[in-house]
Amino acid sequence: MDKLKVGIIGVSGYGGGELARLLLQHPNVELAYVTSGTYAGQPLAAALPGTAGRTGLTCEKFDPAAAADRCDFLFLAGENGLAMKVAPLLLEAGKKVVDLSADFRLKDPAAYKEWYKAEHAAPHLLGEAVYGLPEVYRAKITSARLVANPGCYPTSASLAVAPLLFGEFVERDAIIVDSMSGVSGAGRSKFGLDYHFSEVNESARPYGVGGVHRHTPEIEQVFSFVASRPVAVTFTPHLIPVTRGILTTAYVGLTPDQAKGWDLEGIAEEYVSYYGYAPFVTVLEPGQQPATKHVNGTNYCHIGLAVDKRTNRVIVTSVIDNLVKGAAGQAIQNMNLMYGFDETAGLTMAAVWP
Amino acid sequence: MDKLKVGIIGVSGYGGGELARLLLQHPNVELAYVTSGTYAGQPLAAALPGTAGRTGLTCEKFDPAAAADRCDFLFLAGENGLAMKVAPLLLEAGKKVVDLSADFRLKDPAAYKEWYKAEHAAPHLLGEAVYGLPEVYRAKITSARLVANPGCYPTSASLAVAPLLFGEFVERDAIIVDSMSGVSGAGRSKFGLDYHFSEVNESARPYGVGGVHRHTPEIEQVFSFVASRPVAVTFTPHLIPVTRGILTTAYVGLTPDQAKGWDLEGIAEEYVSYYGYAPFVTVLEPGQQPATKHVNGTNYCHIGLAVDKRTNRVIVTSVIDNLVKGAAGQAIQNMNLMYGFDETAGLTMAAVWP
Amino acid sequence: MDKLKVGIIGVSGYGGGELARLLLQHPNVELAYVTSGTYAGQPLAAALPGTAGRTGLTCEKFDPAAAADRCDFLFLAGENGLAMKVAPLLLEAGKKVVDLSADFRLKDPAAYKEWYKAEHAAPHLLGEAVYGLPEVYRAKITSARLVANPGCYPTSASLAVAPLLFGEFVERDAIIVDSMSGVSGAGRSKFGLDYHFSEVNESARPYGVGGVHRHTPEIEQVFSFVASRPVAVTFTPHLIPVTRGILTTAYVGLTPDQAKGWDLEGIAEEYVSYYGYAPFVTVLEPGQQPATKHVNGTNYCHIGLAVDKRTNRVIVTSVIDNLVKGAAGQAIQNMNLMYGFDETAGLTMAAVWP
Amino acid sequence: MDKLKVGIIGVSGYGGGELARLLLQHPNVELAYVTSGTYAGQPLAAALPGTAGRTGLTCEKFDPAAAADRCDFLFLAGENGLAMKVAPLLLEAGKKVVDLSADFRLKDPAAYKEWYKAEHAAPHLLGEAVYGLPEVYRAKITSARLVANPGCYPTSASLAVAPLLFGEFVERDAIIVDSMSGVSGAGRSKFGLDYHFSEVNESARPYGVGGVHRHTPEIEQVFSFVASRPVAVTFTPHLIPVTRGILTTAYVGLTPDQAKGWDLEGIAEEYVSYYGYAPFVTVLEPGQQPATKHVNGTNYCHIGLAVDKRTNRVIVTSVIDNLVKGAAGQAIQNMNLMYGFDETAGLTMAAVWP
Repeated sequence: MDKLKVGIIGVSGYGGGELARLLLQHPNVELAYVTSGTYAGQPLAAALPGTAGRTGLTCEKFDPAAAADRCDFLFLAGENGLAMKVAPLLLEAGKKVVDLSADFRLKDPAAYKEWYKAEHAAPHLLGEAVYGLPEVYRAKITSARLVANPGCYPTSASLAVAPLLFGEFVERDAIIVDSMSGVSGAGRSKFGLDYHFSEVNESARPYGVGGVHRHTPEIEQVFSFVASRPVAVTFTPHLIPVTRGILTTAYVGLTPDQAKGWDLEGIAEEYVSYYGYAPFVTVLEPGQQPATKHVNGTNYCHIGLAVDKRTNRVIVTSVIDNLVKGAAGQAIQNMNLMYGFDETAGLTMAAVWP
Repeated sequence: MDKLKVGIIGVSGYGGGELARLLLQHPNVELAYVTSGTYAGQPLAAALPGTAGRTGLTCEKFDPAAAADRCDFLFLAGENGLAMKVAPLLLEAGKKVVDLSADFRLKDPAAYKEWYKAEHAAPHLLGEAVYGLPEVYRAKITSARLVANPGCYPTSASLAVAPLLFGEFVERDAIIVDSMSGVSGAGRSKFGLDYHFSEVNESARPYGVGGVHRHTPEIEQVFSFVASRPVAVTFTPHLIPVTRGILTTAYVGLTPDQAKGWDLEGIAEEYVSYYGYAPFVTVLEPGQQPATKHVNGTNYCHIGLAVDKRTNRVIVTSVIDNLVKGAAGQAIQNMNLMYGFDETAGLTMAAVWP
Repeated sequence: MDKLKVGIIGVSGYGGGELARLLLQHPNVELAYVTSGTYAGQPLAAALPGTAGRTGLTCEKFDPAAAADRCDFLFLAGENGLAMKVAPLLLEAGKKVVDLSADFRLKDPAAYKEWYKAEHAAPHLLGEAVYGLPEVYRAKITSARLVANPGCYPTSASLAVAPLLFGEFVERDAIIVDSMSGVSGAGRSKFGLDYHFSEVNESARPYGVGGVHRHTPEIEQVFSFVASRPVAVTFTPHLIPVTRGILTTAYVGLTPDQAKGWDLEGIAEEYVSYYGYAPFVTVLEPGQQPATKHVNGTNYCHIGLAVDKRTNRVIVTSVIDNLVKGAAGQAIQNMNLMYGFDETAGLTMAAVWP
Repeated sequence: MDKLKVGIIGVSGYGGGELARLLLQHPNVELAYVTSGTYAGQPLAAALPGTAGRTGLTCEKFDPAAAADRCDFLFLAGENGLAMKVAPLLLEAGKKVVDLSADFRLKDPAAYKEWYKAEHAAPHLLGEAVYGLPEVYRAKITSARLVANPGCYPTSASLAVAPLLFGEFVERDAIIVDSMSGVSGAGRSKFGLDYHFSEVNESARPYGVGGVHRHTPEIEQVFSFVASRPVAVTFTPHLIPVTRGILTTAYVGLTPDQAKGWDLEGIAEEYVSYYGYAPFVTVLEPGQQPATKHVNGTNYCHIGLAVDKRTNRVIVTSVIDNLVKGAAGQAIQNMNLMYGFDETAGLTMAAVWP
């Protein structure tokens, strides 16, 4: 079978670079077209030194016609705001698209405007766009033309909490999602003291506290979909001095009635059952806890479970690599589903350890 | 005035080493006696390379008679279980003591046995021992003979939440304390993969999830004292790849009635008022958030405040240096209060930045 | 074609673990047998959390008969001293072997005794064993039964300097090899303060200064082979706070006569020519310098070249991942050559970036 | 005695910030005036969060008249090029100055132009300016009006090698200075990928290879002064992922004649003798090696010595904190000498450990 011709728009960012790293290994794909405003005309290795010796690809300036001409499929890995202009053109040209930006994640154009401070340029596509979290929306993804790849925090939070929400767990309060992320989550183009090595190293700090981070509505959209009713969250992200990795600790309070009937083993069974068909989610044995290093460089999510009997709370922890399961790897997983490839194709490498 | 002659029992651990670093600068103190099982007979710089060129002190084997003979005051910085054997001897000899271990923190000997799996060797002193968190127990500390220096997590959690509890904030649920700590919190003598550089670096992980960490009862003891009623917590510690620093994010849910009457500015005023006499606590302006690096090497605690109006929760963040305000610095602050020195004596250095 | 059945003796160390990570992706190999003293009877993921969800392999206790029965080929990744006892048995059973320990690297049993403080247990195999640096010994490796996989520092130093030695560059003095390594180079089983996160983090230090590191004779053995005459080195290793990576800066002084005739471009041509057939060595353009992160997780070596005209010295820098090109990846490259597989089979993943 | 009124021009950079941290503790100094272009009008804690709670100082816009009016003494901690314009004004106003920039380090205005690509604005002061390395130029510093504070690498290299040069060691070749530095050495205002956390973390890289780094002529100027003849160096700096610290490994080759007469103990004696009056230099026992963490946050320099008998080379290692002994601490040490204060005043804190 001929390989699928794939392009990456915005290859020199961290998401785009990770797509390149992974697609160069993908058995069903030919990486045919890569673009970068900054590195146009230069070899890919100028943008991504880690690909030196691996490919002769050259970064090009993005041109929709060239993209349509040379690719069957496009990953959009540019800044927020680009995809909603570009995706309509590519769809009209008969291409399929996975967008790694935030442009098509929120279903409600008013919510988009509220959180991203701009009018949406392609509101007619918001209904068609499928939210690309395969563990929740697998069936819809398989037939999608346009997939909105989830944010890194929402992926981490949703995988941690979905089985509880699906299991009609009636939490007695808004769910708390407390997450910490590595610095690559901020992208490659944000310079300044906030991401300067000397100020980030040997430090940890919260940001976006009090429900003001843009991933809050995205998390609530997934949670509400899974629970089939509105679910609110208190979401607090933190920056820690690692390059990659997100660790989420979620607190779900049970009603006293429910708390009586549940124990750790029962909850663990619920999780194992919910993720029975999910090749990238590993539910750890009760008593074990995950570490971000365990999934470094991979598309896996590890989940740890604990119960605080005294306070009737379930505490769920999840780890992902923010650039893989939180971005490029999940985008490839979506592409695999859209084309009927093995869901794990190109994504089977074990974690870099240590 | 003659300087106070001070000894450190267990100088080669991280708590003891930090005491030495700080006491060598203290204007009212002469560091007269330091002990270490591992380094007995060797210069202090063998145990603590960072003191080379600063002192001619030699590590000795601990001998209660020598300690009593040569010191007015003793810091006990050994492993848990040592102080409850040694403190009675030193008190009988007329010395004052600050104990940095967990031995005298819990008031209830049964609780001690439950959490530390051993009978307490000096239960008659548990009533007399004062919990050395000056921001809560200042008056009692000034007249104490025996001070139990708080754990690092309980210090961080208590400073974050005390003003809310004191303000008769009736939280609608058990308080959530989500903390992350640098690796030095595990001490210097715990070897093995858990603290091996290659496995800790570029990784974050939870531990003691579900209310099983020994600092849980200690946190609840302080919270309940401040609130004048029993208060429960869900406490989750995490390990992050920094050497020093604790960041706590605490979630306190208000009852709907209370939530109506409060806003961020009002809460900030409450905090500023509560910490009016506390020289080491800085309440940040609403909208600002702390970073552990801001207090690195210092006895300061910075506190950030936020409100999530949609879920009626106050989110309080606090940062300390686990070895200073979380251990040695607080112990010296306690000593200062016990002797009527300036509360900040020897503790005024600004943070190492960056 | 049937896949080659491969075993890893000592899978729970960092070298063994990296072999497992890479071999699980290898197109010509079935990973049939993995052993670990510490984790015998447990799933591989207990030893290597990063393989969870990737394999159902179980760690076994090493048994030579089982190894011979179930494998065609064995990687020996145990501590120094094991291979010289085990390799003879496996060779007699008709197996081929790559040994990642130091046992078969030095040709002279007297040198082995001097540097490793023990009699060699299989001196009769030292002559047959081929030093597994494909860029220098490729032809011999293809027909070898027993390959001694090079040390990480010697790999890094040899790739940096070989073209100069081969080019009959008559250096005017002993070559200086100044290297820095990540902490994983010390292995997984060395506990203690030397590799404790809190003491390694935010620190750099030299060790083995003055020609006393065991890799010194190994470096000189390769250098002398390439130059066809005895070559001495001054080798200084340093520990830096990264998990993976070796950066070597080598100083080669030219005789005044030679220095006249050479310039940076000429030296660069020499390097490009020498490494024309080496798929894993990338010689950077003059003016560019490598970074260890550029080869993180890969089998690549990047080389930077500079000339100090004022002092008639060539300064060569090289970077490798100490666990891949410096250990497991090179071992697989050797296996590929021994079986006529594509030299790069299983080793084509681009660097994890960032 | 009245305290000396001191100002810091450029307080928001890392050098200026470190001056503030240290001067706030200095027994003979009142910090009277601090300036910052970026933070003018804001509290010092806005620029330096680690000073929160420690001082009420406000950053001002630099004004030479105000500086002269309110200060007896000025530290110039701005970018290169500022001091040569400002220092003449301050000297005319009768003030004394220590300049932390490179403006007055090179004695030869032609060399300044060659290395810094600009005409010197105050060449008439180059003769008067004293190079502020107290271990070499102590006597001149005590009577200086204008001190050029050394660069961080030259400090590290000079302290490592000076006793050998002073001892009429006739090295057989240009000395090799191989150094690695923490990222704070690049300053606070250089943004971009080179100092972005994600690209620096878990990586090491050389730069300025081949004698092109601006500290090369500065190192040679000191070496030549100490040796009383021209001395050449090959200097290679590297960037490693720590915030603070410089580790230099220097290679000095002896002539065969000299090599016969020297051994490690003899060299160590030479060093101890040379640094007999230097309170901040600690020569380690033969066999010991330093680590940058041992001097973190302090003005100390630790020196390790080794001899490679086979190649007739002395290998000297030195560690400093690049922001203290390599910048702000040394500047204060110079001020102490200029005013007859205790040379160690304000600089006696032991290293932050771990």
